[in-house]
Amino acid sequence: MARVYNFSAGPSMLPEAVLRTAQAELMEYGSSGQSVMEMSHRSPVFEAIIQETEASIRRVLNVPANYKIGFFQGGAHQQFSMVPLNFMTTGKADYMVTGNFSGVAAKEAAKYGDIRIAASSEDRNFTYIPDIASTEFRPDASYIHICHNNTIFGSVFNEVPQVDGVPLIADMSSNIMSRPVDVDKYGVIYFGVQKNIAPAGMAIAIVREDLLGHADPKTPIMMDYTKLLAKDSMLNTPNCWCIYMTGLVMKWLEQDIGGLENMQKLNEAKAKVLYDYLDSQDFFHNPVEKPYRSLMNVTFTSPSKEMDKLFCEQAAKAGFVNLKGHRLVGGMRASIYNAMPAAGVDALVDFMKEFVRTNG
Amino acid sequence: MARVYNFSAGPSMLPEAVLRTAQAELMEYGSSGQSVMEMSHRSPVFEAIIQETEASIRRVLNVPANYKIGFFQGGAHQQFSMVPLNFMTTGKADYMVTGNFSGVAAKEAAKYGDIRIAASSEDRNFTYIPDIASTEFRPDASYIHICHNNTIFGSVFNEVPQVDGVPLIADMSSNIMSRPVDVDKYGVIYFGVQKNIAPAGMAIAIVREDLLGHADPKTPIMMDYTKLLAKDSMLNTPNCWCIYMTGLVMKWLEQDIGGLENMQKLNEAKAKVLYDYLDSQDFFHNPVEKPYRSLMNVTFTSPSKEMDKLFCEQAAKAGFVNLKGHRLVGGMRASIYNAMPAAGVDALVDFMKEFVRTNG
Repeated sequence: MARVYNFSAGPSMLPEAVLRTAQAELMEYGSSGQSVMEMSHRSPVFEAIIQETEASIRRVLNVPANYKIGFFQGGAHQQFSMVPLNFMTTGKADYMVTGNFSGVAAKEAAKYGDIRIAASSEDRNFTYIPDIASTEFRPDASYIHICHNNTIFGSVFNEVPQVDGVPLIADMSSNIMSRPVDVDKYGVIYFGVQKNIAPAGMAIAIVREDLLGHADPKTPIMMDYTKLLAKDSMLNTPNCWCIYMTGLVMKWLEQDIGGLENMQKLNEAKAKVLYDYLDSQDFFHNPVEKPYRSLMNVTFTSPSKEMDKLFCEQAAKAGFVNLKGHRLVGGMRASIYNAMPAAGVDALVDFMKEFVRTNG
Repeated sequence: MARVYNFSAGPSMLPEAVLRTAQAELMEYGSSGQSVMEMSHRSPVFEAIIQETEASIRRVLNVPANYKIGFFQGGAHQQFSMVPLNFMTTGKADYMVTGNFSGVAAKEAAKYGDIRIAASSEDRNFTYIPDIASTEFRPDASYIHICHNNTIFGSVFNEVPQVDGVPLIADMSSNIMSRPVDVDKYGVIYFGVQKNIAPAGMAIAIVREDLLGHADPKTPIMMDYTKLLAKDSMLNTPNCWCIYMTGLVMKWLEQDIGGLENMQKLNEAKAKVLYDYLDSQDFFHNPVEKPYRSLMNVTFTSPSKEMDKLFCEQAAKAGFVNLKGHRLVGGMRASIYNAMPAAGVDALVDFMKEFVRTNG
């Protein structure tokens, strides 16, 4: 069977060239006589893999020297707890709630201190991002937390809060590596890897060094950024296979794509095809206000729930899978991350047109 | 190059047949049009994988119906924090310290309550297991914690504490699946998968249901057994690839090996070859008292540190890799988990004999 176009919100498509390399190297990496899945994480052959993976992230994202990069387990959900346990030094933090995961993060942080919701877009079911300039943040907040791209609702921040002396911490799970990032606007950037980078089972955090060293004494050892980063992500055995896969994807971004500027152009072109079509007709509807539309997650509904269901069924038969929207939004969602080829979006739009012709 | 014999303590060898299946299926699992690494964890095709993996663990280990099986991230180290946060309901727990990891587990638990070291074998550098019958446990301890097989020191429990009303919690990272286990002697069994089951990046816990529901309110969400098990290990995105690999290894244990009774016989035979040789000569020395010798991790020293180094170097050149002992013990360590073929141990002993002939 041919490869399907997989619009899953995560785990999601990986570049076919990367999968082919992983397959070719699976029984033996280089001339090591072992699979990457069998290697001691303390062996020189694996140390070279993890060091090159970290270096490639630093190059691709242009991470300044005063930021550390770490590989963690537990996904972004685990980071939701780690952020307050490590960085809430004043006992207070401000959260912007612009979707599901930013709300989960705020709720988790409230276990550990005084959390204020500085702004929320829940009033219009998260179809926009609140105005940054008119949002008030507490000057004694330890940090401001945002989720940069809202996977479920399909919205994204265009500008981010910048408050003197209050670091910005961002969950970028669903749009990291999709375009360049001004890392120095952030104190911490973290992301689960399973959407735009690698198979599931790991999060990466990029942490400004001056924020380290203040974890709550009861922080579980595997949730202490300072301790893990001091051991170069090898306090215990890391997810070696996922680190290897991350390295392959970084190499693809650098060598096949040519870096994040090019990746952004490709992603903008893909998203434009889908949004332009959505805006050109009245059968499907995207609920997100135009300035805040995500390049990664495109939500849309048909005239009825029954029609949504029929659409997803027929799409799956035609090789477009995982288009069902999240239950909080309904309808459909096409997640078009880096590894989704432009041809996949073009083919989806053709399919949508044909669906409207026969069902509209 | 031929596959090396990899004696790493973990990550470690995987069965060659399992790796070949993973390679064959890497680009497309079944007729799904996707790699397992790309699948939505909520899709029916992945749900079938995780359910069969769990069912196969239940069959192979003969896990009673009143125990739940969960897939967690963060390895055994994360379990070291999860155990006290979830199960220390009286504020007290008793730990036996018989090696490095049981000591780390006790130290981590002491962040959250009153930890008593009920027994330790540190007095003779962890070369034995303290007598269970003469070890006193507190009747109001919430649980007793042991590490069943000591990876670094190469020792193992032959019998385990059984105290009415005080559940036994065991880290079995380095000998799970090596032989049958009486699960009902334990309240909780947990293990990192990277030694005897799968690639690194996951732990599995088997939890008696009546122990659930009492987590400390400040338990980070990803460390709450009750919440994760209520969501069938999918509170967030699990390590899907590792779950798939675990399923392949369980199938190999059931179908190729014929279950844990057979696996135990094979492991006993392998270990006997190595221990019999060690006991037959005076050049290499195994420090562990005979009744407590591990079937999985066999430690030995040569007459000097210089000779240890020479041995490891020459062994690596001959295709026997990762034999260097842990810094806490020195010398050498041969980890001979399930996937190490008997031929690998035979060849190692031949190599050791030849090394003694030329260097002894």
